[in-house]
Amino acid sequence: MEVNDLTIAQFQRHISEKYEKVDRQRGAAKTFLWFMEEIGELATALNGDDKANLEEEFADVVAWLCTLANITDVDLAEAIKQKYLGDKPPEGHK
Amino acid sequence: MEVNDLTIAQFQRHISEKYEKVDRQRGAAKTFLWFMEEIGELATALNGDDKANLEEEFADVVAWLCTLANITDVDLAEAIKQKYLGDKPPEGHK
Repeated sequence: MEVNDLTIAQFQRHISEKYEKVDRQRGAAKTFLWFMEEIGELATALNGDDKANLEEEFADVVAWLCTLANITDVDLAEAIKQKYLGDKPPEGHK
Repeated sequence: MEVNDLTIAQFQRHISEKYEKVDRQRGAAKTFLWFMEEIGELATALNGDDKANLEEEFADVVAWLCTLANITDVDLAEAIKQKYLGDKPPEGHK
């Protein structure tokens, strides 16, 4: 599969298949702590000059966001379509 | 377009086309503050019971993550492929 063909739904499902059982047992509140840890690492990377590390931290944040969506039964692609790709997408600063 | 066909690259490009010029002028540090505001709203939604609001906050976090990636020249789909879809995807807790 070409990387540009990777759909949001595919990646959310991939994270579900690999990790959801454990993630769901941990629960949303504790999983949010893991997510925030990755957000912190993204901040550190944004403040640095290691591009490969920055890319990795972005990937981790997306993965943990998928995890949070999985365990709260949110379809990310559908949520994005509703907010950003409908008849009235937000203008200005979103 | 079917929602399940929405690729990560397409949505990152959509956010770029609509918002990148302003986002880039704001800079990564100030944009991170906006991003964190959305993270806070996601936390609030996770703590509540309004599913439509929760979905909206997930969408906003993805959108602002795309913005951060755009203005730091990171290809999210490529970053995800490198970290999660290669020969050695992370096991366990990612």
